[in-house]
Amino acid sequence: MTSMERVHVDTKQRSYDILIGRALLAMTGEKLREVLPGCTSAIVVCDDTVESLFSAAVMESLSRAGIPAHVHSFPHGEEHKTMRTVMGILESMEDHSLQRSSAVVALGGGVTGDMAGLAAALYMRGISFIQLPTTLLAAQDSSVGGKTAVDLRAKNMVGAFWQPSLVLCDCDALEKLPDSVFNDGCAEMIKHGAIADPGLFAMLERGEHRTSLPECIRRSVSVKAKVVSGDELDTGARQILNFGHTIGHAIEKCSDFGETHGRAVAAGMCIMARACEKQGIAAPGSAARLEALVRSCSLPDGTALGADELYDAALSDKKRSGDSISLIRMRSIGDCYISREPTSALREVLEKGL
Amino acid sequence: MTSMERVHVDTKQRSYDILIGRALLAMTGEKLREVLPGCTSAIVVCDDTVESLFSAAVMESLSRAGIPAHVHSFPHGEEHKTMRTVMGILESMEDHSLQRSSAVVALGGGVTGDMAGLAAALYMRGISFIQLPTTLLAAQDSSVGGKTAVDLRAKNMVGAFWQPSLVLCDCDALEKLPDSVFNDGCAEMIKHGAIADPGLFAMLERGEHRTSLPECIRRSVSVKAKVVSGDELDTGARQILNFGHTIGHAIEKCSDFGETHGRAVAAGMCIMARACEKQGIAAPGSAARLEALVRSCSLPDGTALGADELYDAALSDKKRSGDSISLIRMRSIGDCYISREPTSALREVLEKGL
Repeated sequence: MTSMERVHVDTKQRSYDILIGRALLAMTGEKLREVLPGCTSAIVVCDDTVESLFSAAVMESLSRAGIPAHVHSFPHGEEHKTMRTVMGILESMEDHSLQRSSAVVALGGGVTGDMAGLAAALYMRGISFIQLPTTLLAAQDSSVGGKTAVDLRAKNMVGAFWQPSLVLCDCDALEKLPDSVFNDGCAEMIKHGAIADPGLFAMLERGEHRTSLPECIRRSVSVKAKVVSGDELDTGARQILNFGHTIGHAIEKCSDFGETHGRAVAAGMCIMARACEKQGIAAPGSAARLEALVRSCSLPDGTALGADELYDAALSDKKRSGDSISLIRMRSIGDCYISREPTSALREVLEKGL
Repeated sequence: MTSMERVHVDTKQRSYDILIGRALLAMTGEKLREVLPGCTSAIVVCDDTVESLFSAAVMESLSRAGIPAHVHSFPHGEEHKTMRTVMGILESMEDHSLQRSSAVVALGGGVTGDMAGLAAALYMRGISFIQLPTTLLAAQDSSVGGKTAVDLRAKNMVGAFWQPSLVLCDCDALEKLPDSVFNDGCAEMIKHGAIADPGLFAMLERGEHRTSLPECIRRSVSVKAKVVSGDELDTGARQILNFGHTIGHAIEKCSDFGETHGRAVAAGMCIMARACEKQGIAAPGSAARLEALVRSCSLPDGTALGADELYDAALSDKKRSGDSISLIRMRSIGDCYISREPTSALREVLEKGL
């Protein structure tokens, strides 16, 4: 067996491992048995695209481990992140007589993790679930934090905190992604390096996400796990993970979501870093290093959008919390902090950083 | 101010008080402020019947306390205990821009508590809620335990554990109930006395639920709170609360739910007590005391249904957990226990107890 990376996550609800390695999908059954020895049956939840690529390996592995399972798939795409899709999962669970001792297997990206996790949280008031992320972004983002949600009119309005019992990141699967999806996930690794792990940032600068992907993911996930464990219910400290996000969300919005999350956040980070450097907050050279790394991952280091429209979009996004705003500022590569500032400070950041 | 009874409930999720007294609905606003000083707005959830009886007093009190609120009502009846109704509540919350700092006020019986509680658990991954039970059953049953759920094909298949921040039992409201609804709630008090509080049982024998309702409710709720605090996630010990329920559910089912929950449980408890006494398990005279108290509350102490049909209905209800069944046996008034027995023991109970 090849080596496997492991991140242990401790939460009030439950402790679990994130395993990162090769050919892990084919080990789903045995790994599931290790953490849930009494598991009586399972539902594998995925979208139609992922189903055709990966569900056979997972079903075979569950069958070898003696766990009866069925696949429930739904159409891919953000627009299916609704309670209607979750209800479809729940009805399928009832149809197949899943019990408290059954498990939900979330096979896919962030949307699938959200909906399968919420279904697991709600079925019989909560049963176990494990996550098999198939995108690099989901491997880092939705594997830690326990957040599940669906959209109403606004995004993520309805959900629950529900922790998985196990996360298996199969790097073979992640590397099958189209380049654009892989690069989107790189933005998340860059972000975690930039806010708290200069060593990870340096690894990425040396291109080690192409040669040592499991270790890069482990370090990236560890940053998120450390931040989240200090702020399980999302009351403040987690905001550090929003580096690049206030501006990034505004870019997504102004581009009518034509720009992906990863590309928008990459641009948002570079804009903030340039502004911090010009304002004497960040060490000289920080922005240039960030820009170079972002570009090497085929991500944009800026946007053609203007300060006015970005400012308006960013403010309308904020949830009416008055005249101030939380900005994630950079001191240097690997050292960011949360700063509560008047909303006018964001305009200055945009003007200086664009 | 008249005296107020108080039960403090400690849960892992949160600690809260159940206040039991007179004219409490008109104190909703000030009591809500005491436990949630930062509350910015509220939604009052109720069914159409309760709305016309009680919502004005609650809205007035919230307004006096400076808490902006709106009423969301839905048609009364068990058949509306569905995710569709919960989604209606959630959409109304979004329509009125409720925030994390807002609160859900559940005004009504068990169905309302379930659905308002689930909406509170899910909105923005969980906001505060308080319960204003308007039935004697809900005052004892849904005020402790943190269980919320809606039905799929089977009952209570989808839900969450979500604890209230406060429960206000207004006995003036409870006494406005039709006699049949009040008597249904008496079955719950009798049950709690029978399983663990002989003093409460004696109070009810003396008719003190007519003269000292708040104290009777306090003692009844205390029994449930004590049991639940030892088994928050419903893994076993809570089963003691099912005294009379295996047979009671079978009666409900065979009567096509023409028999109410309270009447069915009352009959179920008497059947079990008679069987235990005949089998030498319960002290002589226990069954006669139970029967007399049940009849004094205009509840039935038996059923015209036969052992065969009840046995079949009871077993089909059990969730495939093999050849054994948990029976709640009685040693004496105020002393019941959980007993794991072969399913055939249930048939003997029915034959001896009917």
